[in-house]
Amino acid sequence: MSSEQSVGLLSGMEARNEHLKVRNYRSLYSFATALGVGMLVMVLSWLVKYRDGFSWSDPQLQFNWHPLLMVTGLVFLYGQSILIYRTGRNATKKRLKVTHALLHLSAFILAVIGLKAAFDSHNYAKPPKPNLYTLHSWFGLVAVIIFTGQFVFGFVSFLFPGLSRTLRAAFLPVHVATGIATFTLCVVTALVGITEKTIWTLGSKYQDLPSEGVMVNFIGLFIAFWGILVLYLVNDVDFKRANLPEDEVALSNSNTD
Amino acid sequence: MSSEQSVGLLSGMEARNEHLKVRNYRSLYSFATALGVGMLVMVLSWLVKYRDGFSWSDPQLQFNWHPLLMVTGLVFLYGQSILIYRTGRNATKKRLKVTHALLHLSAFILAVIGLKAAFDSHNYAKPPKPNLYTLHSWFGLVAVIIFTGQFVFGFVSFLFPGLSRTLRAAFLPVHVATGIATFTLCVVTALVGITEKTIWTLGSKYQDLPSEGVMVNFIGLFIAFWGILVLYLVNDVDFKRANLPEDEVALSNSNTD
Repeated sequence: MSSEQSVGLLSGMEARNEHLKVRNYRSLYSFATALGVGMLVMVLSWLVKYRDGFSWSDPQLQFNWHPLLMVTGLVFLYGQSILIYRTGRNATKKRLKVTHALLHLSAFILAVIGLKAAFDSHNYAKPPKPNLYTLHSWFGLVAVIIFTGQFVFGFVSFLFPGLSRTLRAAFLPVHVATGIATFTLCVVTALVGITEKTIWTLGSKYQDLPSEGVMVNFIGLFIAFWGILVLYLVNDVDFKRANLPEDEVALSNSNTD
Repeated sequence: MSSEQSVGLLSGMEARNEHLKVRNYRSLYSFATALGVGMLVMVLSWLVKYRDGFSWSDPQLQFNWHPLLMVTGLVFLYGQSILIYRTGRNATKKRLKVTHALLHLSAFILAVIGLKAAFDSHNYAKPPKPNLYTLHSWFGLVAVIIFTGQFVFGFVSFLFPGLSRTLRAAFLPVHVATGIATFTLCVVTALVGITEKTIWTLGSKYQDLPSEGVMVNFIGLFIAFWGILVLYLVNDVDFKRANLPEDEVALSNSNTD
C-alpha cells in the first residue's frame, strides 16, 4: 500500500499529526541506536584494550566474552526487538512478529554462550570460584529465566501454532508488560555487573579514576541512557504503531496474523 | 461528589470497566507499597545489625545515613509521589499537585542530608577518601541535578505562580517523561550503590554468601521489583486518572488548577 493511499484514509489533520509522531520517533530512535552502537563499541574496546581480549581456553580471558555477549544480546538486541513494532511500523504484523522472534532468538543464543563463558571462567579458575552469590548473578538468573519463558510462551501463543484470537488478545498485555519489565531488569543487571567487575579489577586504584575507570563509567552512562530511551520509546502511546488495513485482512484469514 | 453521582455520568459498561481498573490498580499498588516498606525495613535492619548503626560524628557511621535517606527519599517517596495522581484519583487536581510537591520536597530534603552524609564520610575519614569517582556517584549526581531542576521547574510551571494553560499543556509530557526517567535512574543508582558497598565491605567473604550478603541481595531484589512495579503502574494507560468534573471548573477559574 502506497503512502498516498494510506493518507487518503485519514483526515488531513490526522495525517499531519501521524507524520509528526513518526518523525519524532525516527529522530529519537536514531539517537538511541547511535548510543547503543557506541555502547557496544566501548564494551569491545574496554575488553580488548584493558582486559587482554578474548579466548575460549584461558578461564580469565574466557570471562571477557560474558560482558560483550550479554550486553549485545540482552541489552542491545533485546531493546531493538521490543522497539521493532514501532521502528518497522509500515511492515505487516506477520513480518514484525517474525523479526521480533528472530531478534529474540539471536539474543537468546548470545546469552547462552555468554552465560557459559561466565560459569566456565569460575569453574575452571584455579582455585575454582563459586557461582551465583552476587546480586548481579541473582538478577541475571531471574532475567534469563523470564526471558526464556517469554520467548517460548510468546512463540507458541502468537506465532506457531498460535492461540485463538481471544486468548492472544488476553495474553498480549501480559507479554508486553513482562517483556518491558525483564528488559529493565537486564539493563540493571548489566550496570550492577560492570560495577562489581570494575571494583574487583581496579580495587583502590578506582579512586584515582584511571582511564579504564573513566571508560567503564562512560559505558555505564551509555547503557543507562540506552535503556531509559528504549523504555520511553516503548511506553509513550504517541509512538505506538497504528494497525494497517492489511492487519485486519490477516486477522480474518488466520489465527496468527 | 458522591460515587453514585459519578456513576450517573457514565454508561453502566464504562462504570464497570472503570471500577475494575481501579480495583486492579489498588491491588498492585498495595502490593508494591508492601514491597517498598519491606525494602525500607530491610535497609534499616542491615545498617543497624551489620553496619553498627548511625552517628553524625564518626565518619564511618555517618555514612550509614546515606543509603537509608537516599532509598527513603529518592526511591520510596519519589515512587509514591509519581503514583499519587493514580493513587488519589478521586481527589481534586489541586490537592494532588500539592501532595506531589510535598512528597517531592520531603524526598529532596532527605536526599540533601543523605548526600551530606556521604561527602562528610569521605572528607572526614582518615585519610580522606576522594569523591565522585564511581559510576554510582556519577549516576547519583545526574539524578539529583535533574530531580532538583524538575522540582523547581514543576513548581513554578504547574503550582506557583503557574504558567498559561497552553504552556502547561506543552510542558506536562516533558515533565512526566523526565520524571519517570529520573526515577528509573535513582533506582539504578541505588542498586549500583549497594553492590559497590557490599563488595568493599565483604570483599572475598561475599563468595561464602554470609547472612549480610544474603540480606543485601534481598534488599536489591526488593528495590528492583519496587522500581519495576512503579514503572508499570505509572506507564499503563489503564491506570491513568480520568479528569473529574471539578477539574474542568477549576480550569476555567484559575491558571494552576
